[in-house]
Amino acid sequence: MAALVRKSCSALHRSVSRHARLATVCRSMASKTPVGFIGLGNMGNPMAKNLLKHGYPVVAFDVFPEACKDFQDSGAQITDSPADVAEKADRIITMLPSSANAIEVYTGSNGILKKVKKGSLLIDSSTIDPAVSKELAKEVEKMGAVFMDAPVSGGVGAARSGNLTFMVGGVEQEFDAAKELLTCMAANVVYCGEVGTGQAAKICNNMLLAIGMIGTAETMNLGIRLGLDPKLLAKILNMSSGRCWSSDTYNPVPGVMEGVPSANNYQGGFGTTLMAKDLGLAQNSATNTKSPTPLGSLSHQIYRLMCAKGYATKDFSSVFQFLREDESA
Amino acid sequence: MAALVRKSCSALHRSVSRHARLATVCRSMASKTPVGFIGLGNMGNPMAKNLLKHGYPVVAFDVFPEACKDFQDSGAQITDSPADVAEKADRIITMLPSSANAIEVYTGSNGILKKVKKGSLLIDSSTIDPAVSKELAKEVEKMGAVFMDAPVSGGVGAARSGNLTFMVGGVEQEFDAAKELLTCMAANVVYCGEVGTGQAAKICNNMLLAIGMIGTAETMNLGIRLGLDPKLLAKILNMSSGRCWSSDTYNPVPGVMEGVPSANNYQGGFGTTLMAKDLGLAQNSATNTKSPTPLGSLSHQIYRLMCAKGYATKDFSSVFQFLREDESA
Amino acid sequence: MAALVRKSCSALHRSVSRHARLATVCRSMASKTPVGFIGLGNMGNPMAKNLLKHGYPVVAFDVFPEACKDFQDSGAQITDSPADVAEKADRIITMLPSSANAIEVYTGSNGILKKVKKGSLLIDSSTIDPAVSKELAKEVEKMGAVFMDAPVSGGVGAARSGNLTFMVGGVEQEFDAAKELLTCMAANVVYCGEVGTGQAAKICNNMLLAIGMIGTAETMNLGIRLGLDPKLLAKILNMSSGRCWSSDTYNPVPGVMEGVPSANNYQGGFGTTLMAKDLGLAQNSATNTKSPTPLGSLSHQIYRLMCAKGYATKDFSSVFQFLREDESA
Amino acid sequence: MAALVRKSCSALHRSVSRHARLATVCRSMASKTPVGFIGLGNMGNPMAKNLLKHGYPVVAFDVFPEACKDFQDSGAQITDSPADVAEKADRIITMLPSSANAIEVYTGSNGILKKVKKGSLLIDSSTIDPAVSKELAKEVEKMGAVFMDAPVSGGVGAARSGNLTFMVGGVEQEFDAAKELLTCMAANVVYCGEVGTGQAAKICNNMLLAIGMIGTAETMNLGIRLGLDPKLLAKILNMSSGRCWSSDTYNPVPGVMEGVPSANNYQGGFGTTLMAKDLGLAQNSATNTKSPTPLGSLSHQIYRLMCAKGYATKDFSSVFQFLREDESA
Repeated sequence: MAALVRKSCSALHRSVSRHARLATVCRSMASKTPVGFIGLGNMGNPMAKNLLKHGYPVVAFDVFPEACKDFQDSGAQITDSPADVAEKADRIITMLPSSANAIEVYTGSNGILKKVKKGSLLIDSSTIDPAVSKELAKEVEKMGAVFMDAPVSGGVGAARSGNLTFMVGGVEQEFDAAKELLTCMAANVVYCGEVGTGQAAKICNNMLLAIGMIGTAETMNLGIRLGLDPKLLAKILNMSSGRCWSSDTYNPVPGVMEGVPSANNYQGGFGTTLMAKDLGLAQNSATNTKSPTPLGSLSHQIYRLMCAKGYATKDFSSVFQFLREDESA
Repeated sequence: MAALVRKSCSALHRSVSRHARLATVCRSMASKTPVGFIGLGNMGNPMAKNLLKHGYPVVAFDVFPEACKDFQDSGAQITDSPADVAEKADRIITMLPSSANAIEVYTGSNGILKKVKKGSLLIDSSTIDPAVSKELAKEVEKMGAVFMDAPVSGGVGAARSGNLTFMVGGVEQEFDAAKELLTCMAANVVYCGEVGTGQAAKICNNMLLAIGMIGTAETMNLGIRLGLDPKLLAKILNMSSGRCWSSDTYNPVPGVMEGVPSANNYQGGFGTTLMAKDLGLAQNSATNTKSPTPLGSLSHQIYRLMCAKGYATKDFSSVFQFLREDESA
Repeated sequence: MAALVRKSCSALHRSVSRHARLATVCRSMASKTPVGFIGLGNMGNPMAKNLLKHGYPVVAFDVFPEACKDFQDSGAQITDSPADVAEKADRIITMLPSSANAIEVYTGSNGILKKVKKGSLLIDSSTIDPAVSKELAKEVEKMGAVFMDAPVSGGVGAARSGNLTFMVGGVEQEFDAAKELLTCMAANVVYCGEVGTGQAAKICNNMLLAIGMIGTAETMNLGIRLGLDPKLLAKILNMSSGRCWSSDTYNPVPGVMEGVPSANNYQGGFGTTLMAKDLGLAQNSATNTKSPTPLGSLSHQIYRLMCAKGYATKDFSSVFQFLREDESA
Repeated sequence: MAALVRKSCSALHRSVSRHARLATVCRSMASKTPVGFIGLGNMGNPMAKNLLKHGYPVVAFDVFPEACKDFQDSGAQITDSPADVAEKADRIITMLPSSANAIEVYTGSNGILKKVKKGSLLIDSSTIDPAVSKELAKEVEKMGAVFMDAPVSGGVGAARSGNLTFMVGGVEQEFDAAKELLTCMAANVVYCGEVGTGQAAKICNNMLLAIGMIGTAETMNLGIRLGLDPKLLAKILNMSSGRCWSSDTYNPVPGVMEGVPSANNYQGGFGTTLMAKDLGLAQNSATNTKSPTPLGSLSHQIYRLMCAKGYATKDFSSVFQFLREDESA
């Protein structure tokens, strides 16, 4: 399967990429032609709407009919399958929940690759295993099209307001074409390197984020038990070397900051389940590359445990609550 | 011992503190009277010299004759014991390497308490167990004097340039008197709360610092193995939620930043042994207060292991090197 | 304090131990003279009763009057303080909940050392920090008496049936005298080496026990989720290299074994709080000796967290339950 | 790819398995017909030789010509590819180093499935991801053949002496046919349940083994530093609740036991790299099933780190050495 695909692919490589480059030129002249969008969930829906707002006709698909219905009302054209999207648009963005879904949408029996046009630009904004992104890129390239991974940071709010950050991996000369579309949804579009590095940047950031958040939570809890006022402790950390995004921008202790999930009973924000998923991807990547990640690995376990103990839907800063003494206990 | 001290102390408490307060008034009028300084090591020496520079006569002691000799050349008066310092100065700063040393300097047979004057202000800038600070404070108070814990952040460089940060715990009305002296050595003097909270703030900060540093090291290593350029990865983290002091100010990866220990083969900076020591204090405090600190605890183990594997004298950011594949392996 | 005690003690050492040895001879001839017992809790009560059963008159003390009352009904003599016990018996066993309690009972204002007779044998069966045992031994020796640490393994059941295991540290020539008494309460009395090694053996065993238990719990849980029958998995582990006491004698998965706490909703057995306490002692010892203990340290954190989340009074094998998905979640 | 395979497979399922069952009957009558063996490495070579010793003609393949040459001298027939093996034998055992190799040997362009006969019995003794075993089983079943996973425990020595333990997953009615062959190489052949459970049992055992080994190493090291004699400590643990296979059968401390790798500078035995690989499989399985495995995960990291620090080829009990103070440091 995957392993074999890899081998047969390298010979084909050179001739195909020449075709792809030619096609690119045509594409970039043909702005405002229809853009495909597959995956109309919490994130995909507002992202696709921002494309509409910028004047792009959108041809969309989602496995859930309700998701399609809601989006159709916005003026988009709905199709029957990823393959149909590929027939009608030569620029496609996919926003899917998992590696397995991405594999199916691209290579499935009604997948994009069944009808993809030569020279098409396929941008996957899902957060998935970078090794899967690389496999998909090879399959796409075999069809004479171009694949880029472009996962996002920023949640539903940023998706709505068009303030996402895209981390983009893929052939550098295609980056401008991708950026043209992604800019409609983004505050930042960062080129990270070859295919898979967008995913790599995303999961690296989220691994360090998780470590910083748990570290902040246990540090704040320890300080409070040692008699420090939480606001004062946060202030001291933030002017010192303990400073991090979780301490100065998203503090997990209720009462320290306003407008963050800890001020709202850990509602909203970035759910523990999603963090556990991203940390699972980080661990897969660490295992594949034989990279020791002791704190990242333990952080994964802690979020995994939190999912099992009733914190699945709370914001990931609820680890502060998880580490505290239960009042009921 | 300690437990018993605690009990007998509370009765004495009220009458003593009245004396102390009275004495304070006298002290604050008597600026530029001699200041005692005990502990003339890498940190203590430049700290005491900054007191001299600000015009304070200094009466000093260190167990190592060479340390005394060097300091005497700066114009200070050297005495034979902590007790002698206490006889000649009613404001004393101590800067010692461990809890055991602090206990001996204060309560030993030639310790400060043998000859301390009523109303004296004793400021301990050592980084020690906050529980020991509290015990010392009680012993000091029994003698009618005042104790404050005031550990520092910032290394030898900051000590020389007078740019330390002091985190101060103790009776609030004494804070101004302490600040008068500490300001000679500091960029920041922060009041943290009752006795022991200076230490608490210090060890909390350093625990989160260690977590952030190890987290940054393993994240950067993972990203590099996944094909990301280290400078680009650092840039992405620093504009995202993975940002922390260790990623944006003290990056552990050689070549990412200039002027940090990673750019100089991990020479200088904050040694792994010292970090392991501070994390040991954090763990003691966590155990005493029954606070779960999973990442802090694992960070302690990692720095402990590094000390055993030849990294003891390198800067603590060398954890990046520790996690990497040995080139020789 | 402690540090200073250490120094002044070494000179005194030789002359004292000669006295102690002489006294030993007299003691061992005077069997069935009264034995002191301090600490009549869940463990101490049945232990002291076994001494009575073996014909030893017992002179006892506990801070809780009810504990004394109950024991008095068994025919023992109750005194007013540890000092009084020391006045009436030259062999004393102490069974106390913490280091702080032991320090007070030995060195407090009404402590044993206030009235201890030369040549007395003081056996501490508490589980405390080995460093504290060593300090107490030095104080005791200064009075011309002998101190041994002799913590137990085995719970309340073993205490009742006289089937405890004692791990004994102290001067080897005193071991027989200690064994004479301990045998009344024990299935095994093991000599471990100099003072403190009894504690060391105890906390080492319990640290490895905790690691084995958590390891067994997470392994069984993983196997079950992968489709294995729990009984079959336990059988496979127990005939393979995964075998450990927690898998073959005290399996944490309900339904795998009978007569263990997991078969009884984790009632009885060895409470999570006690395990967390012993792991805290292990961590203190590891920090003091700069020994890396990554799994021991993480196990401490897990039991600490369990105490905070409602598992404090359950048997420590309830970690299996802690790691599982909540049915209510 | 994998995901799609899964779907299309279920319809085919029933009719195929009827064929397979019929074929089984024929197979079990035709004992001593040729047996295929693919993978003639350190383990595979002695395993296949044991089949020869028991009178089975062996048709073999390995990608390395030298491995084939050596085996040919034993009297086996060597073929050009896995497909050729499948053409000449309807019972095949595979013993391969990784999931990727197994995928290639079964589904590659010259793989077994290219020429497998209906009713063939394919037994994979590689240690691989149980999810991959399940995928392979589905592909095999589509061809009307039977797949079982049967990883082994026991190293090269047990492979030579025919004392391996096989943990077998697959359809229960095929177990006897598999056992007939495996018994030639085994002391134990254990039926674990449906396809994948053999792998599950194997990786569960090895995860608990790793935890027990690291736990034993850190406990022994701590005890030694606290003044205990290592042999005595091992004895105490082994009669107490700390007992495990790593303490009583394979003690990692030099001088405690004879005939184990720790007595021979950690030569031989089960290499750190292999343990790291198995723990990686365990972590993949834990992530896939969302099972928290805090100690298993940290153990993985520790063996990963050891591989990076020069312990890759030493026995996995060398973790004792890894945790100790370097003499050179």
